[in-house]
Amino acid sequence: MVNDQHIASVFDRDLEAIQALIMKMGGLVEANIADAARSLEERDDELAEKVRALDKVIDGLEEQVNDEAARVIALRAPQATDLRTVLTVMKIASSLERCGDYAKNLAKRTGVLVQMQPVGGASKSIRRMAREVEQMLKMSLDAYIQRDVDMAEAVRERDREVDQMYNALFREFLTYMMEDPRNITACMHLHFIAKNIERMGDHATSIAEQVIYLVTGEMPEEARTKADVTSTVAIEVEG
Amino acid sequence: MVNDQHIASVFDRDLEAIQALIMKMGGLVEANIADAARSLEERDDELAEKVRALDKVIDGLEEQVNDEAARVIALRAPQATDLRTVLTVMKIASSLERCGDYAKNLAKRTGVLVQMQPVGGASKSIRRMAREVEQMLKMSLDAYIQRDVDMAEAVRERDREVDQMYNALFREFLTYMMEDPRNITACMHLHFIAKNIERMGDHATSIAEQVIYLVTGEMPEEARTKADVTSTVAIEVEG
Repeated sequence: MVNDQHIASVFDRDLEAIQALIMKMGGLVEANIADAARSLEERDDELAEKVRALDKVIDGLEEQVNDEAARVIALRAPQATDLRTVLTVMKIASSLERCGDYAKNLAKRTGVLVQMQPVGGASKSIRRMAREVEQMLKMSLDAYIQRDVDMAEAVRERDREVDQMYNALFREFLTYMMEDPRNITACMHLHFIAKNIERMGDHATSIAEQVIYLVTGEMPEEARTKADVTSTVAIEVEG
Repeated sequence: MVNDQHIASVFDRDLEAIQALIMKMGGLVEANIADAARSLEERDDELAEKVRALDKVIDGLEEQVNDEAARVIALRAPQATDLRTVLTVMKIASSLERCGDYAKNLAKRTGVLVQMQPVGGASKSIRRMAREVEQMLKMSLDAYIQRDVDMAEAVRERDREVDQMYNALFREFLTYMMEDPRNITACMHLHFIAKNIERMGDHATSIAEQVIYLVTGEMPEEARTKADVTSTVAIEVEG
């Protein structure tokens, strides 16, 4: 007896193969974010080197996703939701690749920061922020696979927390720099790292928004109010 | 008498309509980069406000490009080079939208920086860098329309200069901050602006690389050695 539910179309099988690549990519990116943040906190340049090397694999996977997706579009001429799904998959791959780049960049800066005096508890806070973003990425991919709008909404919610963590760090760095000019160079690097982690959170959010669009046919109402307020922060040190 | 050369396929006409949107988007992004940099140098927050408002129009155009591109794929089921072209157009739109975001962000920071004491000749250097990137963007779009690989290569070449300008600015900011702690907050903002302009250059380069891929079928050999060396800069001030 044939069970209709188990007869997948050729398109579905193609799509599953691409999704497998996305999940593999996601796993590597999450691992690389965690390792990059750990390399910073533990001042472990060997681990940082591992992160930098793994980024090439992630880039290769994105290319594979793009090639496969283009092949499926050309071969199966998917319509409506199927087409939208393939285009979404390409966007997700692009977001993951960007996150991978940020992790690599973090690892590069670890190589420099290990040569400097540590700045307060900054690297601990950065690692906590990285852990948050890593979980958001994982949730956004789960939301995609399960087409789970609630989970996607939860990712958007968590991004506000990451933005707040970033804002707090920004102020912390200003203070360290004003207290002691010897902290300036290290803080410039740490600030970049924090900003890049905050951007990874934006990418996880963007994946979640793609999921919402895919399931509901509509983008979530007006991209949530952006909570990074540092571009309008004007702290001045006493003359 | 019918001239064969002038009979365009339905697909070609669709593509031309999308390309017109891209060119419009490109024009607005270029103008917004120029205005954002001018608003910073001339401390003109009214102009900055205009830039911030225009960014919504740019975002809307990207959505339009994506919708149109998806419609063309679904309707015309383009194959081979035609499909690659449509996917390239979507990537170009995404790069332009990112550049627009960076210009908006620059304009936001202008709003803050006008409240602070100017820092040396920094905003002049930033405007020069912005002008360079604006021209690169224009060239990369021309290269796309004319399928001109040489012009695309020239864009990649110019990106090295932008990277060098950024590296020089990074060092300049470190110096200003170390000299006088009252410069720290302003320099943090200026540094972000410089980094974002450098990223716009990366996007222009990425458009140029898409053109090369579209024409030759191959990505330019190993993404050129990245010339932003600041992630490995370790300047320390004397204790």
